[in-house]
Amino acid sequence: MTSTIWLRLGKYLRDTQLLGSIHSTLYWDQNTVMPSGASSWRGEQLSLLAKLLHSRQTSHEFEDLIIEASTELEEETFLDITEISERKRNLDLLQLEFNRQKRLDSKLVVDLTTAKTNGYALWQEAKLNKDYERFAPALKKLIELRQEQARQLDEPRSCWETLAQPFEPDLTIKRLNELFNPLRDSLPSLINELKPCSQMKSGGWDLDKRSQHNLCERLLNEWGRDENITSLGRSPHPFSITLGPRDFRLTSRVVKGQPFSCFLATAHEWGHSLYEQGLPSQSHQWFGWPLGQATSMAVHESQSLFWENRVARSRDFSNRFWKYFAYEGAPVGNGLDLWRLLNPLVPGLNRVEADELSYGVHILIRTDLEIALLEEDLDVWDLPNEWNKRYKELLGVTPSNDAEGCLQDVHWSEGAFGYFPSYLLGHLISAQLSEAMAISLKSEGTTSEDPLGQCIRDGNEAKLLKWLRKKVHVYGRKVNAEKLVKEVTGKALSSHAFLNYLEKKLEMLTSSS
Amino acid sequence: MTSTIWLRLGKYLRDTQLLGSIHSTLYWDQNTVMPSGASSWRGEQLSLLAKLLHSRQTSHEFEDLIIEASTELEEETFLDITEISERKRNLDLLQLEFNRQKRLDSKLVVDLTTAKTNGYALWQEAKLNKDYERFAPALKKLIELRQEQARQLDEPRSCWETLAQPFEPDLTIKRLNELFNPLRDSLPSLINELKPCSQMKSGGWDLDKRSQHNLCERLLNEWGRDENITSLGRSPHPFSITLGPRDFRLTSRVVKGQPFSCFLATAHEWGHSLYEQGLPSQSHQWFGWPLGQATSMAVHESQSLFWENRVARSRDFSNRFWKYFAYEGAPVGNGLDLWRLLNPLVPGLNRVEADELSYGVHILIRTDLEIALLEEDLDVWDLPNEWNKRYKELLGVTPSNDAEGCLQDVHWSEGAFGYFPSYLLGHLISAQLSEAMAISLKSEGTTSEDPLGQCIRDGNEAKLLKWLRKKVHVYGRKVNAEKLVKEVTGKALSSHAFLNYLEKKLEMLTSSS
Repeated sequence: MTSTIWLRLGKYLRDTQLLGSIHSTLYWDQNTVMPSGASSWRGEQLSLLAKLLHSRQTSHEFEDLIIEASTELEEETFLDITEISERKRNLDLLQLEFNRQKRLDSKLVVDLTTAKTNGYALWQEAKLNKDYERFAPALKKLIELRQEQARQLDEPRSCWETLAQPFEPDLTIKRLNELFNPLRDSLPSLINELKPCSQMKSGGWDLDKRSQHNLCERLLNEWGRDENITSLGRSPHPFSITLGPRDFRLTSRVVKGQPFSCFLATAHEWGHSLYEQGLPSQSHQWFGWPLGQATSMAVHESQSLFWENRVARSRDFSNRFWKYFAYEGAPVGNGLDLWRLLNPLVPGLNRVEADELSYGVHILIRTDLEIALLEEDLDVWDLPNEWNKRYKELLGVTPSNDAEGCLQDVHWSEGAFGYFPSYLLGHLISAQLSEAMAISLKSEGTTSEDPLGQCIRDGNEAKLLKWLRKKVHVYGRKVNAEKLVKEVTGKALSSHAFLNYLEKKLEMLTSSS
Repeated sequence: MTSTIWLRLGKYLRDTQLLGSIHSTLYWDQNTVMPSGASSWRGEQLSLLAKLLHSRQTSHEFEDLIIEASTELEEETFLDITEISERKRNLDLLQLEFNRQKRLDSKLVVDLTTAKTNGYALWQEAKLNKDYERFAPALKKLIELRQEQARQLDEPRSCWETLAQPFEPDLTIKRLNELFNPLRDSLPSLINELKPCSQMKSGGWDLDKRSQHNLCERLLNEWGRDENITSLGRSPHPFSITLGPRDFRLTSRVVKGQPFSCFLATAHEWGHSLYEQGLPSQSHQWFGWPLGQATSMAVHESQSLFWENRVARSRDFSNRFWKYFAYEGAPVGNGLDLWRLLNPLVPGLNRVEADELSYGVHILIRTDLEIALLEEDLDVWDLPNEWNKRYKELLGVTPSNDAEGCLQDVHWSEGAFGYFPSYLLGHLISAQLSEAMAISLKSEGTTSEDPLGQCIRDGNEAKLLKWLRKKVHVYGRKVNAEKLVKEVTGKALSSHAFLNYLEKKLEMLTSSS
């Protein structure tokens, strides 16, 4: 038995992946160095590639290969159990995605593309003019089309759940509530406790571009970046993207008046990139196969948050790095100064700029509202009121206009519903993995009470990465997010670890002030 | 009559151009920011695109469209004569290229690709080890395959002429000799005259990267760069490339110990880019059509040389720019200092580093040798001897090894024969166009005896560009290089203007020392 079909399917997937990675390369270029006048032609290039990709992903040839490979696998006699189960998982995931593509009628696909482009344009205009009314009809249209999409997909799930699947496979609203309810109960009161304590602000000073770049370079070098396979660029919105099995790109940018923004974004994006760098790349799972891909956006986010919050924002890291910041001109005289500046706890209106504590509340509000919009007949015209009411209740702040409120994020304007929870689930997963990592490092002989802190003090982040690679990255899509967490930590995912972490950090921060 | 087929053909060409420009975008990325470890995957991406492109360029659908569009054009009654002749020219050029692609058998195409890859790898190795013998068999193979290619193309031209067509349409060896013979006669004696006069060398000092970048930025800003449609990058070998109708990229690089290299390369590549920016872009000729393309490599080179040599290396430019160089740390106290540093006249072994005077000799030697290799049975094993003999005779220098000699340039290792003359033809065309430009500007009312110099003194390069746009760029491939020159200057192309220019410059330089 030579697995002929399997090899042919692998070749097919590889060519699809080549096309997909060309699309990604154009996206990278567009966001880093492309002159603005080129955008219309670039749009046409991307459309052409999207068309070619879609036709490969829905072709009869592809469908036949998946079916025939399944038959071939049943007749395999030379493979061991692990290999058979891996192949089966690959084929199941391919079949699942093929069906999703196939079930949609082409008119809906075209209508959705138009509605997204239109929605994005109107959202930009509405946000600029602080005028939600300009955007509302486009949002209504997007909701209707996405509801129709869920109907056509016809999965045994609710509408919102169906749309969330590409981001968080197997997630249900019931499970989401189990995970999020303790946060709904605890976060507002934690935030309330915080309010009286004064915060050290970073206002009034800044670092120049060169200094910020120097600090980012030092960070990546100390974290073991391999320049042969990574490249750093600048773009208005930081992102990380994989363009080939040995081609990892990330971007950051300097924000005026926010001297840590570039540094923390670099740490965050590097975490995303490390996950991608650690995904399984053995020949038969390589790149084009489902098992070579990230298992969920929440797991992805857990990795970026680990490097941003658990490492770069930790007390031990500040003790090690404050002198570099001081050298570049930051007004810090010791590790404590830097640590407090890196960890402001001030509830505000903006999700992206939120601290670790109030971040979760931003997500809870968005999650509830998008479920209400899709499944509970919340009228798009009532969205601003609902938004503002909840911000007042949970964070104690009120947007002065809708640009600061429900027009804040791009997601809904592009028809992306079901994505927001991944951000908060990422915090939960990151916290639970960090606890397991500490236990694991202790059992491996690290004598410190705080083994993560010890590694950070020693500049030995390689040890943390080695653990993540072995325990998390290597799975790819072999298991979903929840199973991965169970497998690695021995416990079902919950909000305990995250809440513990927040309480402890809050205590440290308030006692240090 | 609605020109239905014409529109369909335009759509077909546009999609081909989209794919081609995607290929170019990947090439740009590869040479500017791609990490080195990504090269193997990038190679596969480029191969996939090349395959898709080739299949579009040789498809029955494409052939039918060309033929049907020709029939349709014959029946057109609503178009004016200019439009008919333009359409006819487009169709003729499409037919010509289609036939070229179709006549080659696929085995030869594959063999050539392999031989080029192989030749390039062995050339790199041979050059590194100064060991021509390692490369000779690969060169022999490339020559045989290219001879076979010429046979299959079966054009009414000699082998070398056939291979030179893609670079210089309609060029013949007879015509090339008419143009080059006066240079063969004059250049060696001009170089001889020069030898006794001492040259001011730029050795012993350098400018740091930042200073060189500042000077390049200033140059492009003063030359009216539009940042909305251009982007500047860094790559080991400077190049200019067009990625879309409003997407022009160029690169340069800093060379240690050569403080002017980055600056002059930027001027040169900007000249290439300006030509591309000025090509006709009316809707029906847009981008994908032959008339929207550069007419020949020599014309392309004439434009880059104009901005590099006629403008950036001119006395007037130095008088304007020396203070910026001085500010950045160059040891110049006036325009004369800078001008002499920018114009060293020292015959050497290296083509790329050659001065304006000896550059031609480098090309004459290569042109003769490649014609001898392809058409006159020069044995590849005799190439080093022939090369060294001619360098001794014509430039008075002898390579100490073949890396400095016949292994110097990459072209032959990639099977590119017929390209070298374009460099020298570019000098001829640039000189003749410059003369015509001077006459033209005078007739338009510029009173100065030296109207180009006047524009440069005034920082009014826009006037020079306007002339080039109107007289040269706008033609695209409507006429070939020679016809273009005749049209613009009223005279057949010759070496007169170039030789006049060299003699005059030589006199100025020697009298200034």
